[in-house]
Amino acid sequence: LKLLEERILKDGIVLPGNILRVDSFLNHQMDIGLFNELGREFASIFKDCAVNKVLTIEASGIGVACITAQYFSCPVLFAKKHRTSNIPGEVYKSSAVSYTHETTYDIAVSKRFLNSADKVLVIDDFLAHGNAVLALADIVRQSGAQLVGVGIVIEKAFQEGGALLREQGIRVESLARIASMVEGSVQFCE
Amino acid sequence: LKLLEERILKDGIVLPGNILRVDSFLNHQMDIGLFNELGREFASIFKDCAVNKVLTIEASGIGVACITAQYFSCPVLFAKKHRTSNIPGEVYKSSAVSYTHETTYDIAVSKRFLNSADKVLVIDDFLAHGNAVLALADIVRQSGAQLVGVGIVIEKAFQEGGALLREQGIRVESLARIASMVEGSVQFCE
Repeated sequence: LKLLEERILKDGIVLPGNILRVDSFLNHQMDIGLFNELGREFASIFKDCAVNKVLTIEASGIGVACITAQYFSCPVLFAKKHRTSNIPGEVYKSSAVSYTHETTYDIAVSKRFLNSADKVLVIDDFLAHGNAVLALADIVRQSGAQLVGVGIVIEKAFQEGGALLREQGIRVESLARIASMVEGSVQFCE
Repeated sequence: LKLLEERILKDGIVLPGNILRVDSFLNHQMDIGLFNELGREFASIFKDCAVNKVLTIEASGIGVACITAQYFSCPVLFAKKHRTSNIPGEVYKSSAVSYTHETTYDIAVSKRFLNSADKVLVIDDFLAHGNAVLALADIVRQSGAQLVGVGIVIEKAFQEGGALLREQGIRVESLARIASMVEGSVQFCE
C-alpha cells in the first residue's frame, strides 16, 4: 500500500538490530485515519472470504484489528498473553517466543468465542520471525475454525515468519513488505 | 447509556469477589458495533472540549479508544506497562496497583507524543479502584497537557476510583455506573 510505504519512509526510524521504530503512528501513538485506510485495504483483499471474526493478540495488534473489523461488521477477539490471563473456563492455548523481550510466553483464547463455524482473519501489526502469528494459527486450528488468511501491516520479508506461514499453506497478505533496511534507508519488495 | 446497561444485564456475569465478567463483548471478544455506539456517546459528551488526543492503557482499553478517536479525528496514544516497555528516548512514568493480578506495575508514555499543547481525553474500559486512570492522569499532569476528562465504559461506583478522581477535580463520565452487584443481579446508579 503506497500510502503506508510513504509513511514508513517519512516517519519510520531504522535502529541497529533490524529494529524499525514506527511508534509515532503504529504501535504506541496510533494514527486512526491511517488505520482506516489499512482496514479498507484488508477488507478489499479478503472481501470474498466471509470473514466473521477478526483475531489478534494484545497489545499493539488490537487497534488495527478493531478498525479493520468495522469493514467486516464482525467482532474482534484478542488472544491474551499468559501473565495477564484471567480467562474463566476452558481455553485454547499456544506459546510463542518474543525476540524483542527474549522470553517465551503462552497465549490463550476462550473456547466460548471460537469454533468450527468461524471464518477467521488474523490481523497483526508486524510479522518478523512469525512466532505470534504461528501461535494464533495454532489456536485457530485447535478450534476447528477456518483461517481464511493473515493480514499484516508491516512484514520484515528478510526474516523467516512470512515463509514459515506460507509453507503451511496459510494466505499471508502484508500491506508493506520490507526487503532490507539499514540505518537511514528502507527498501521495499517489488 | 441504556444500550450498554441492557447489554450488561443480558451478557454480563457476576462472579464472587465483585468481578463482572463482560468478556463476550468488552474485554476479550469485542463487539465493534457496540463500541461505535460508545464512541458516539463519548463524542457527544466531550464535543466542546477540543480533544486532540485520546490516551488509554494496554490492553483492553485500546479497542474502545481507537473507535472513539474516530469521532474526534485524532490519534490514540496507549501507555505501555513496564514489562513490555521498549520505548526509546525519554518517557513520562507512573505506577499503579493491579488488584486483579495483585502486583504493582509501572506505566510509560514517550515524551515525544504528549506536551502542553495537548487536550487529552482518557478512555478506559473499567473504573474500579482507579489505579490505572490515576496513573494516566499523573502522566498527563507531568506532560503539562490539559486533561479534559475521563471516559469510562463501566464504573463500579461502589468502589473508590470514581470518587478519588472527582476529588481531584477531574471530570469523569461513565456510560454505565454500577451501584451494586450480587450473583445474578446488577443494579445501576440512578
